[in-house]
Amino acid sequence: MFSFVGGRLGRWRVTRIEAVVAEGLPMADRVDVVDRRIETLPAGAAWILRGITSHERYVTAREHEQLAAAQPSLERPEATRAALIPIKKTEEWWQLSQDERRGIFEDRSAHIATGMKYLPAIARRLHHAYDLGEPFHFLTWFEYAPQDSNKFEELVAELRQTEEWRYVSREVDIRLDRG
Amino acid sequence: MFSFVGGRLGRWRVTRIEAVVAEGLPMADRVDVVDRRIETLPAGAAWILRGITSHERYVTAREHEQLAAAQPSLERPEATRAALIPIKKTEEWWQLSQDERRGIFEDRSAHIATGMKYLPAIARRLHHAYDLGEPFHFLTWFEYAPQDSNKFEELVAELRQTEEWRYVSREVDIRLDRG
Repeated sequence: MFSFVGGRLGRWRVTRIEAVVAEGLPMADRVDVVDRRIETLPAGAAWILRGITSHERYVTAREHEQLAAAQPSLERPEATRAALIPIKKTEEWWQLSQDERRGIFEDRSAHIATGMKYLPAIARRLHHAYDLGEPFHFLTWFEYAPQDSNKFEELVAELRQTEEWRYVSREVDIRLDRG
Repeated sequence: MFSFVGGRLGRWRVTRIEAVVAEGLPMADRVDVVDRRIETLPAGAAWILRGITSHERYVTAREHEQLAAAQPSLERPEATRAALIPIKKTEEWWQLSQDERRGIFEDRSAHIATGMKYLPAIARRLHHAYDLGEPFHFLTWFEYAPQDSNKFEELVAELRQTEEWRYVSREVDIRLDRG
């Protein structure tokens, strides 16, 4: 379980918070990434987002191996930029069956294949929150080096044009740096 | 979100609690089925099990339609017997990819097809708890009429012989009646 606390503390400085779909989030100076559940808003904090890394949902064994071989770990010294992108999906999405969701996610939106193109530049950790009853269903945390910023913009732009993204009912894009 | 409170209260009387795999649960007179999160153990209660109905994980659109056409609702007047079967799966199960889990679950263990054979006799509601950090990962609640008791025993016995069940690290079988 991870808690992302937007407030005055934390290693990551917020450079921008953008409301991509629907309502945004209040501005905060910093984000503190904590590897446990934080229940109540600390003094001076504006929000807490919570999620759990959990098990995989759509990736096949073959894709899992390809990802595992190529994906970098978090906290590389050169990766001084980060993004936290909380997403909520529509009720229609969750009413779909597993094969329908996989069909949209990968066969028609190439979510995994698109992410793969940007490896090993961009590190990523996905947190699930649907079952937790949180306001967002997914929190994705990305880390990359400043020279890979354009690649990251491409990745995000590509995903936002997919059929899968028609099922996104709320998305916020939080950019951060450290140093 | 549902809470199953084993204690002195509730519409359902406990007739038996069996430890099928690993540790069981303390005996309780009754189980109260509550459609919200109960945080703290009420006076006289022995345990609380919590889960969320959530979205489907393995069922295809085709199977979903077949199930929807055949499955009865809960609370049929004649369905005076119930079972609550909490299950935990191994870490090995959760490390498998989605296609590997689906392969074991349906292609090789026929979990959905087996359940389908016992429709419309046996009503069922599945609750997920893995992401909630609860001691069990699934809570399945079944309701059936006394004359369908043998069918229910067959269903349970059949599932326990499958390859999928090799990944069950804890299972408790709680039987109940009302009246």
